[in-house]
Amino acid sequence: MPHLIDRRHLDFVLDDVLRVGDLLSLPAFEAHDREGIAAILDTAEAIAREQFLPSHRLVDDNEPRIENGRVVLPAEIAMALAAFREAGFLGMVADQDVGGLGLPRTAANAAFLQFQAANVSIANYALLSMSAAELLAHHATAEQKARWLAPIIDGRYFGTMALSEPHAGSSLGDITTRATPRPDGTYSLRGTKMWISGGEHDMAANIVHLMLARIDGAAPGVKGISLFIVPRWRAGCGSASEGAREVRAGCGSASEGARREWNCIALAGLNHKLGQRGTVNTVLNVGEGGETVGEIVGAPGQGLACMFTMMNEARIGVSMGAVAHASAGYVHALAYARDRVQGRHPDSKDPTSPQVPLIEHADVRRMLLQQKAAAEGGVALGLYLAKLADLKKAAAIADQRADASLMLDFLTPIFKAWMSEESLRANWNAMQVLGGAGYTRDHPVELHYRDNRLNPIHEGTNGIQAIDLLGRKAVMAEGRALNLLIERLRKTALRARRQPQLAGYGTELEDAAARCSYAVSAMTARREQANARAALSEAHYVMELFGLTTFAWIWLEMALASLPRADHPDAATQAFHRGKLQTCRYVFCHRLVETRTLIEIIVRPDAAVYDMRDAWF
Amino acid sequence: MPHLIDRRHLDFVLDDVLRVGDLLSLPAFEAHDREGIAAILDTAEAIAREQFLPSHRLVDDNEPRIENGRVVLPAEIAMALAAFREAGFLGMVADQDVGGLGLPRTAANAAFLQFQAANVSIANYALLSMSAAELLAHHATAEQKARWLAPIIDGRYFGTMALSEPHAGSSLGDITTRATPRPDGTYSLRGTKMWISGGEHDMAANIVHLMLARIDGAAPGVKGISLFIVPRWRAGCGSASEGAREVRAGCGSASEGARREWNCIALAGLNHKLGQRGTVNTVLNVGEGGETVGEIVGAPGQGLACMFTMMNEARIGVSMGAVAHASAGYVHALAYARDRVQGRHPDSKDPTSPQVPLIEHADVRRMLLQQKAAAEGGVALGLYLAKLADLKKAAAIADQRADASLMLDFLTPIFKAWMSEESLRANWNAMQVLGGAGYTRDHPVELHYRDNRLNPIHEGTNGIQAIDLLGRKAVMAEGRALNLLIERLRKTALRARRQPQLAGYGTELEDAAARCSYAVSAMTARREQANARAALSEAHYVMELFGLTTFAWIWLEMALASLPRADHPDAATQAFHRGKLQTCRYVFCHRLVETRTLIEIIVRPDAAVYDMRDAWF
Repeated sequence: MPHLIDRRHLDFVLDDVLRVGDLLSLPAFEAHDREGIAAILDTAEAIAREQFLPSHRLVDDNEPRIENGRVVLPAEIAMALAAFREAGFLGMVADQDVGGLGLPRTAANAAFLQFQAANVSIANYALLSMSAAELLAHHATAEQKARWLAPIIDGRYFGTMALSEPHAGSSLGDITTRATPRPDGTYSLRGTKMWISGGEHDMAANIVHLMLARIDGAAPGVKGISLFIVPRWRAGCGSASEGAREVRAGCGSASEGARREWNCIALAGLNHKLGQRGTVNTVLNVGEGGETVGEIVGAPGQGLACMFTMMNEARIGVSMGAVAHASAGYVHALAYARDRVQGRHPDSKDPTSPQVPLIEHADVRRMLLQQKAAAEGGVALGLYLAKLADLKKAAAIADQRADASLMLDFLTPIFKAWMSEESLRANWNAMQVLGGAGYTRDHPVELHYRDNRLNPIHEGTNGIQAIDLLGRKAVMAEGRALNLLIERLRKTALRARRQPQLAGYGTELEDAAARCSYAVSAMTARREQANARAALSEAHYVMELFGLTTFAWIWLEMALASLPRADHPDAATQAFHRGKLQTCRYVFCHRLVETRTLIEIIVRPDAAVYDMRDAWF
Repeated sequence: MPHLIDRRHLDFVLDDVLRVGDLLSLPAFEAHDREGIAAILDTAEAIAREQFLPSHRLVDDNEPRIENGRVVLPAEIAMALAAFREAGFLGMVADQDVGGLGLPRTAANAAFLQFQAANVSIANYALLSMSAAELLAHHATAEQKARWLAPIIDGRYFGTMALSEPHAGSSLGDITTRATPRPDGTYSLRGTKMWISGGEHDMAANIVHLMLARIDGAAPGVKGISLFIVPRWRAGCGSASEGAREVRAGCGSASEGARREWNCIALAGLNHKLGQRGTVNTVLNVGEGGETVGEIVGAPGQGLACMFTMMNEARIGVSMGAVAHASAGYVHALAYARDRVQGRHPDSKDPTSPQVPLIEHADVRRMLLQQKAAAEGGVALGLYLAKLADLKKAAAIADQRADASLMLDFLTPIFKAWMSEESLRANWNAMQVLGGAGYTRDHPVELHYRDNRLNPIHEGTNGIQAIDLLGRKAVMAEGRALNLLIERLRKTALRARRQPQLAGYGTELEDAAARCSYAVSAMTARREQANARAALSEAHYVMELFGLTTFAWIWLEMALASLPRADHPDAATQAFHRGKLQTCRYVFCHRLVETRTLIEIIVRPDAAVYDMRDAWF
């Protein structure tokens, strides 16, 4: 079994493209060094291979079910998560003062990719807990951190995001779950939460739901939404007077259930999904059969703002998952294409000659190139975003931190939306390379294809991301984020233009960057002249334009890093870097060219979509 | 539950776009009239809705399994097929002299769409039988027709295509199943057949495998392949001395099994698929545990040529199935988009205002437009191919028959490959419109998405279709088929240019047609200058170019048919035709523009794909 995430590529990205060493010299990360990161990557790879990968099919075949009112999961899920926890991965990015490792996110996300590629259904539980920890680290009080964050980081408690409701998914401003103040300063919650991943199970001493609700009398819309810690178990787990030891003793096992008090969050049902089935997805009735008690996090009315700390991390995590699927599918397709012989070249039709491996066929190479580009480009782009998150937190100068924050905000919807679709196209091609075999459940490709199909939907559909990009991110800070990106693209283009082999790509990237700027100004003008509806109707195509351009940019960065070793005397090293250069060529010659069509669609005054009427469908 | 295939659109295509009335005036179809076709379409819709649709999810949940060596299928499959048979649908296109209705394929395929949309897993059994009947009608002797074709048409026997083997799927020239002559003129067959849909079950008195094999001593490659009738049951069913009545008496029920002699085709296993699970897919060992006897169809060495009679029909049928999925997904997505309220317009952010239906959002309309274009354009294009098949068979003048045959040959790979991918994109968008709900198994969209994923793979992968188009079809008959297509496109463009509202699209279609011609000549020149491998490496993009152009062409044909009624006083009629015009606008403004990029990729001398090496991946 080949590795699902190519370690050589990871190291290349970390060292040669992103220069993670620069990060490690910052005070915030001084506890870490490159050797330590290498050891973490080694451990992640080993645990993913040994504890996550073997049950990828099993957790799909044995979907969560309800028995006697409890969620039943395959034991392999808890076992894998225990191994993950015991190796300390839950606290990778959390600060050391709350019990974490304080690792740069760049390194942590690289490590986490291994788990997402091996078994995303299990990795999701960890991702949710880590995201919840991130949110609590930012917004909870010290006292709340002691009670809720610490046990999440050490794996006794799991976290969830409890945002959506049956009538309010994309439109969070319309949630109706109510929070009524109680005399002791806590709140009593009532409502129904939908699509809650990891919402109910018995793998943890407690489940900490980070839940959005409206305090009685709050303003309508997003301004009236507050954030609450709403635990599955109330008494015996919550009081501040108990130390961590007592909490564990009070909540650790089912036999001690009598000492726990149920917080009246009723499991109303499970959602049965196309993929990612091992991640139990629940409908929860809050305040049913008694009182559900929660405590507020942050200020009243600041719930959505607080939650976005977590959502942005989650969105990057989602598309890192998509990239992990692209990588896994590519690895399987490449192995199959090298192994399976079928057909002959068009110029050698002698039927007695041996058949050639699939990889000899040009069209199979095209499908593999698309996958290689998506998988490796996605890893590089995703880790670049992680580096921005690190710089936002830890860069030496305030301006650097502000710029990193703007770039991260701008690139997040692009990475979430465009990369999740490109990664799914990669899985499409992986299946196509395997042919009929790929369509069967005997090969893992169809499972990656199903698992991955969620990524363009959850954590904000890709349509929402496109509106976020064009309607908010492109114009925020008076366009400064957009300008930072364009500047970054041009810098890379300029470096490329100094290299004869890459000069043409430099020019093409500059042209694409100009198209990005032009698209935004054209849409801004349209919004001023006409109305916001017409301007946003092209958001999808603007997203495609930015996605392709950013993707080409990261590939040009990789090509620049590989160029000096394209003639390396070591054959394997040479092949590695020539592969990067050839893939960059594919991305520019076969993909970035699409931006020429996209800009035409965007600026054309012919509003084919916007003018369509309901009655005409 | 709305209809999965819009009957108004079907009638519009049959009457206003394809003028099926012209077909009905031909002597071959004089037994039929438009009212009769309407009645057949009514019946198909009713049986599909009542007998096929209700078990769509059930046959997916209850996958075929082996019990005591027999394939067990849900009873709903046989019941639905009985209803199909009793209504006479199995013989729709077969000639009247072999017990069929002799219906134009244009009408028959329109009727069959209903079954494919409702439950493709069941429809497949019928499609295979009808394709087998088609093959036998063309190539079997009169005596064989009496014994094998007649009982297939009346539904007592089912047919299969038994081509692939474990080591030979796309490369049929490499099959190794052997046929050894027996003294009585029949053959003894030995080998393993893979991916055989409907290969084993107890729903029919017999299963007639149309099997490819090599007669001992035959030439290597495709020239040594012959076609055989290989029945599941031998004795009591096969002898020519028995009439149809006796055959039925001898084979009709399992209790009479003793009177049937097993033909030693052993069920080696089932393939477990991503979708289309109700269609049992088998691995068969032929000549295992005894002698498997078959009879040859057509001349020795002509097996693949004979089989292609069936394969071409099957390829059109496959993509009609894809289109049926696009249509079903569109119907579900449209209903959901009209029913589900979520969010507000960008210019009306008042959180107390009511939420708007999804269809109000521009990006949802874009996703619905793509689906409408795929579903309705696919139906029109598929039925145009069916009309070509009818004209090939029945046109009054030999030249017309020859031209129809060439056009059909040329368009078949385009329709199979491009349309199956566009239809899958439609299902992708259907799921995206439903969001999280679309990702669950509570809605049928995910099942259409899974079912439909097979279509770019089977009956020749889309990569194979692209090579067929560029390497064979584009150059056959000295380019005459290509010229016929270009001529057809230009005629439509010319008609459009005479209409002010469509003149621009006429020009764009002419430009796209010119790109198609140019792409073929550039690739032909490259083949002469360089080598066949390099020339074929762009086959995928050439396919995309032809697919988009042909798709835009059929939409322009529809727009021309709708234009006179765009201001019709009846509101529903007006909306229907304005919908066609707006969708045509979408196809030209948002999709056909891609051909500008494609021609750049194709003619660019930068062989990014072709130069990629195995070691660089």
